[in-house]
Amino acid sequence: MKHQVVLPQPYLLFLGDTTEPGYAKTAFGLRDWAGERCLGEYAIAGATVSTGLPMLTPAQAAAMGAKAIVIGVANAGGFIPPGWWPALVQAMEAGLDIVSGMHARLRDIPVLREAAERLGRRLIDVREPPVGIPVASGARRSGRRLLAVGTDCALGKKYTALALTRAFAARGIDATFRATGQTGILIAGSGVPMDAVVADFAAGAAEMLSPEAAPDHWDVIEGQGSLFHPAYAGVSLALLHGSQPDVIVVCHEPGRERVLGHPGYAVPSVEDTIDLALRLGARTSPHIRCAGVSLNTSRLDDAGAQRVIAAESERLGLPVADPMRGGEAFERLVDACLA
Amino acid sequence: MKHQVVLPQPYLLFLGDTTEPGYAKTAFGLRDWAGERCLGEYAIAGATVSTGLPMLTPAQAAAMGAKAIVIGVANAGGFIPPGWWPALVQAMEAGLDIVSGMHARLRDIPVLREAAERLGRRLIDVREPPVGIPVASGARRSGRRLLAVGTDCALGKKYTALALTRAFAARGIDATFRATGQTGILIAGSGVPMDAVVADFAAGAAEMLSPEAAPDHWDVIEGQGSLFHPAYAGVSLALLHGSQPDVIVVCHEPGRERVLGHPGYAVPSVEDTIDLALRLGARTSPHIRCAGVSLNTSRLDDAGAQRVIAAESERLGLPVADPMRGGEAFERLVDACLA
Repeated sequence: MKHQVVLPQPYLLFLGDTTEPGYAKTAFGLRDWAGERCLGEYAIAGATVSTGLPMLTPAQAAAMGAKAIVIGVANAGGFIPPGWWPALVQAMEAGLDIVSGMHARLRDIPVLREAAERLGRRLIDVREPPVGIPVASGARRSGRRLLAVGTDCALGKKYTALALTRAFAARGIDATFRATGQTGILIAGSGVPMDAVVADFAAGAAEMLSPEAAPDHWDVIEGQGSLFHPAYAGVSLALLHGSQPDVIVVCHEPGRERVLGHPGYAVPSVEDTIDLALRLGARTSPHIRCAGVSLNTSRLDDAGAQRVIAAESERLGLPVADPMRGGEAFERLVDACLA
Repeated sequence: MKHQVVLPQPYLLFLGDTTEPGYAKTAFGLRDWAGERCLGEYAIAGATVSTGLPMLTPAQAAAMGAKAIVIGVANAGGFIPPGWWPALVQAMEAGLDIVSGMHARLRDIPVLREAAERLGRRLIDVREPPVGIPVASGARRSGRRLLAVGTDCALGKKYTALALTRAFAARGIDATFRATGQTGILIAGSGVPMDAVVADFAAGAAEMLSPEAAPDHWDVIEGQGSLFHPAYAGVSLALLHGSQPDVIVVCHEPGRERVLGHPGYAVPSVEDTIDLALRLGARTSPHIRCAGVSLNTSRLDDAGAQRVIAAESERLGLPVADPMRGGEAFERLVDACLA
């Protein structure tokens, strides 16, 4: 785990005083994908959002073995409001470290920094990359690797990789989800925040994230950005080169026409994305192939989703599935990944 | 110049106690490309290397208007040996700031840090990127831009961009060299060290480096790495996307077959490099074109160089020149850039 962020677990999930479920996506993601490492939730007065996990005080959670309280909610500003500070200090007093994936840094809040120093607790900002990442070597390494590649940001690369990891494991295959973003790192308990690595070391970070492994072990790597993204394509290319994937799965949201936050740019087609990713990826992984396509159909009803999935599979001649809907289509995509 | 490193000038060049001309490449580059901003050189006992510029003490240089002493030599370890420290302190006492492009940081040397604090001088490490770089917008901007694109690292992208800038200016065209690496920044007196920028902001840094300008102004941008480099391709792609070049010139060294430092990787062909750079570059600069090829023929004699240049031009159907050799071939390349 050298050169990776490694988090103390299990967690107590902190929900603050959140009333808007959309702000608690991280907590829901942790419940859904790392439920066995989440002992419960803790909120302060005013909160109406719940993950459905047991409500525990920090002292109760610590007594049950919790090692950290995770800030599982965001707010519009990406900061940690003063109203949350006493609860976080209380958690440290109960013996928990604090883990945050927010933009604002925990140690920039004096009351938290002082309490952490006084109590010997850690303030862990998941956005901070580990130190000592080397330049990529480009050397081939053993083990099998899959990378989720997107037509855009924020359309399901993380959940695709998580669902594939779970499906591989269900078939008895030794597989590890490799996290490259904040929420993924919270879920996995380790990883590298690719977007925060200095550019010269980004491919090296991807190499470190999915190190040499047994020949039949699969690393399933969360993608970042898109090779067509006007701001983040460099990160995506470094991740593609450093990951040396044997297999890519292209992730797309049907109906998304413009790049998120960059309306002057069209979302590329799935075909162009496959073609470019294979061309670029072959530089470090000569036998790279595309196993199929993962569609985010969360805006469609079930019938509409099945229609789009079937039509895209027919059009592309590839397995296509929405991992969140599972079913036979998803099993065919898993088959194709492992073929 | 917001979001760029901006250096105090003119310079006094510091040569340390260097006896190996190969270690003084930065000083020679500054003499050749920023000679009008180099008042002289200063060395300590033992040095045998000279740039041919007047020898000046720091006090003499300061009296002539020098603002900074630039460490114009490297050594094998990339560090600043203790034998140089007294001379650097002396330069600060004479009123000069210190500028370094070395890996080791000036402020990590206590005697330099203390002297700088006592005297109110600046210790400027050119490898440190400016703060506050935004995420790239991808928005089109006015002005014309040329980017030097390489088949590998360290084969003449910087000197190609400098020579083109000089040739444009000689034709009365308003042109600015835009530096993306340490030596280039020392020469230009400003720029952004692309390799040191956090990955998510690399394309944004390239946008800031070559901002909106008059429609007939040319920014000539130093390239970095190669789109085929197993470690640095992400940096190259971010630079290509953020630069939004109208024109690329592909830089290559005939006879270089393996990627520098990565002997497992073949250097790509010029044709493949042109093709990939145009395909990727068109994402943010739809009318991007390749004006021609710059060859580094420094390992060939003049007759051999002319043969290779003519043969490559014939083979590719494009202007090909070695900017360091100039001549009609280079004028044709300049014509093609401006066409």
